[in-house]
Amino acid sequence: MNVLSHRIEEHIAQLSKFTSTPENGVTRVVYSEEDKKAKNYLKKEMKKLSLEVREDELGNIFGTWRGKNSELSQVWTGSHVDAPINGGKYDGVVGVISAIEAIRLLQANNYKPERDIVIVVFVAEEPTKFGVGCLGSRALTGMVTEEEANDWQDENGQTLSDVLQSLGKDFKKIINEQLNPKKVKTFIELHIEQGPVLEEVEKPIGIVNIISAPTEISLTITGEQRHAGSTPMEIRKDPVPAAAEIVLIVEKLTKRMSETSVGTVGHLKLTPSTSNVIAHQVELSIDIRDIKVEKKERIVNQLKVEVEKLIKKRGLTYKWEIKANDIPEKMNNANIELIKHCSESLGLTYHIMHSGAYHDALIMSSKVNTNLIFIPSTKGISHAPEEFTSTYYIAKGIELLGEYFKKITIK
Amino acid sequence: MNVLSHRIEEHIAQLSKFTSTPENGVTRVVYSEEDKKAKNYLKKEMKKLSLEVREDELGNIFGTWRGKNSELSQVWTGSHVDAPINGGKYDGVVGVISAIEAIRLLQANNYKPERDIVIVVFVAEEPTKFGVGCLGSRALTGMVTEEEANDWQDENGQTLSDVLQSLGKDFKKIINEQLNPKKVKTFIELHIEQGPVLEEVEKPIGIVNIISAPTEISLTITGEQRHAGSTPMEIRKDPVPAAAEIVLIVEKLTKRMSETSVGTVGHLKLTPSTSNVIAHQVELSIDIRDIKVEKKERIVNQLKVEVEKLIKKRGLTYKWEIKANDIPEKMNNANIELIKHCSESLGLTYHIMHSGAYHDALIMSSKVNTNLIFIPSTKGISHAPEEFTSTYYIAKGIELLGEYFKKITIK
Repeated sequence: MNVLSHRIEEHIAQLSKFTSTPENGVTRVVYSEEDKKAKNYLKKEMKKLSLEVREDELGNIFGTWRGKNSELSQVWTGSHVDAPINGGKYDGVVGVISAIEAIRLLQANNYKPERDIVIVVFVAEEPTKFGVGCLGSRALTGMVTEEEANDWQDENGQTLSDVLQSLGKDFKKIINEQLNPKKVKTFIELHIEQGPVLEEVEKPIGIVNIISAPTEISLTITGEQRHAGSTPMEIRKDPVPAAAEIVLIVEKLTKRMSETSVGTVGHLKLTPSTSNVIAHQVELSIDIRDIKVEKKERIVNQLKVEVEKLIKKRGLTYKWEIKANDIPEKMNNANIELIKHCSESLGLTYHIMHSGAYHDALIMSSKVNTNLIFIPSTKGISHAPEEFTSTYYIAKGIELLGEYFKKITIK
Repeated sequence: MNVLSHRIEEHIAQLSKFTSTPENGVTRVVYSEEDKKAKNYLKKEMKKLSLEVREDELGNIFGTWRGKNSELSQVWTGSHVDAPINGGKYDGVVGVISAIEAIRLLQANNYKPERDIVIVVFVAEEPTKFGVGCLGSRALTGMVTEEEANDWQDENGQTLSDVLQSLGKDFKKIINEQLNPKKVKTFIELHIEQGPVLEEVEKPIGIVNIISAPTEISLTITGEQRHAGSTPMEIRKDPVPAAAEIVLIVEKLTKRMSETSVGTVGHLKLTPSTSNVIAHQVELSIDIRDIKVEKKERIVNQLKVEVEKLIKKRGLTYKWEIKANDIPEKMNNANIELIKHCSESLGLTYHIMHSGAYHDALIMSSKVNTNLIFIPSTKGISHAPEEFTSTYYIAKGIELLGEYFKKITIK
């Protein structure tokens, strides 16, 4: 345990150095220098375990530990290492380093798996650069079209295709790299909970039965840029109060719908943004989630109706763009039973729960049997510099993963 | 007229080149390279007319045309050349180039004024950098304290004092450069209207009788940064819906108070600003104006009460900072009569009106007799790339200024 805890803390400390905001949490945007450094660190760690390491055209990393029979379908595990603006040290990272350490544990015991075990490090789980979360798993499961790659832009107006090209890569090749579901027996992701539930129920392990899915909308409202002093209130076409109404409608609709519905305007940008000018345009992100697809759709539809009405009333124009519209996914039931069994054999208590946050596991589950395990987040805080998960829980997660790998590869 | 119109258009064209957003209007922030270039252009133009040119420690430019008796109190005129983000070509610029061209007209007719005529180019009329409008005239009239200079910050967290120091200047010297009201007989500013009134009444000249004054508030709301998916609605401390409520309260209170009340949230910034994160903090500017000080104060007081209430209800904290709190000022009545007389003698019709926008004239009038003249803005659009005023109207403004200089210097 001592050596393992040291390794965990060393990984966390090393990876957290790769941030573009060293004074304020971990910011590691896909394709940035920091992201590249974090990925190189992980590749090196995988090679120390003699895994076969390759990176696909988009940047997903695969580290394969060959089993006795590579003809059998593989067991996949992993998570991501990119981080949002001013995020924490644990989100994503824990899933990747735990997979590495679980394999190290098994190797130390001279265990040899029946099937290949593949660690995946997905690129761009966070929607920071192109406004689309889980880019890596989406591309891998065939959910990203060439049209979208030519359309999705970063803050400099560069499309995903442009950015790939500038890195000497080609989106068209990505389409040929999609996973073959027949070759993947199952995918399992270990992740920090990012919410307050496990702390409340005092359990070290959360076994997820369903993942809440987001609809992500990018809304742009255009009015008329004018002088803030000389333009009477009645003739204004100010997009800012319209955006304000929409923020409050999102809050109202999600609060009203169900306990599992959440709605967030996390990004909001005025152009221009200066005190004595009525803005020309407001751009905002709307993120709506629920574990029931009908409820989520009902919220989105009601929101659309209200947005149309108020935009018309205020004499403005708008552009409504659905960036992602995912379906909540149930996790594989047979494997939930197996995870329960593994937990019990290790003396770990667990809690069956839904995931409010989505993960690459959500996307992967559209193609392969998938499972998601949580370990506790202190005070439920995540996507913030204060994000924390004890080494103790990470070690428990690693032991559980190791136990699960032993059982699943012989199934 | 032909030569004058050519000169006007040449000045406008030359000055509009000094922008940091060449694709999208004129952006000329105080102390930027563009601001410096525009000021150098004007100094050169003043020197062509043999004006004595000097710049004070803060950056205000003074170009003095010596009269027959420099012992007499001086006639001041002018405006500014800094521009907001994505602004137009005419705001401020028109007042400065018109003063230059009016003096050129008089010199061409071998006219020699009794008193000195001084063209002032005020620094930082726009509140773009430090959130405070009319910085140059405020400092000149003794309204800026050393404490404020150490407190007001730009977006990089540099205070006004810091910025001055980095330019090799010293705020303390500015205090000794304040104007002596006894030495200034009067100040007159020519400006584009920036509103729709003159076009509606079909008059080329607006003579302002009162300037509406702003209260500018900088409000920072702090909540708890959390994950947008895994944080239930009930436990959120999201500052964004609070800011949205405030935007709508500003709109409601100003619409209700009077026809001359206006309220604008022109700047709004989320930290962080990313779709799947509940923001930690929202920073917003609130600009409230009226021509009646009691009404403006009533709006601000009601707003403060409502802000306190809703921040408390939402479990957030806030910082309320008054950046400017000016008093609406009446323009000098005797000179209004003189301007009317000059207009009539030139065959120009005029409209007596209030100014919704404030100008350096508002600040100057706290210390010296001040007047403000408007010429029409097409469709009332200003602080936008589409801002436009016909050369014809600018020429009429120049003729009126010239006529006024002749009359006022012998009064």
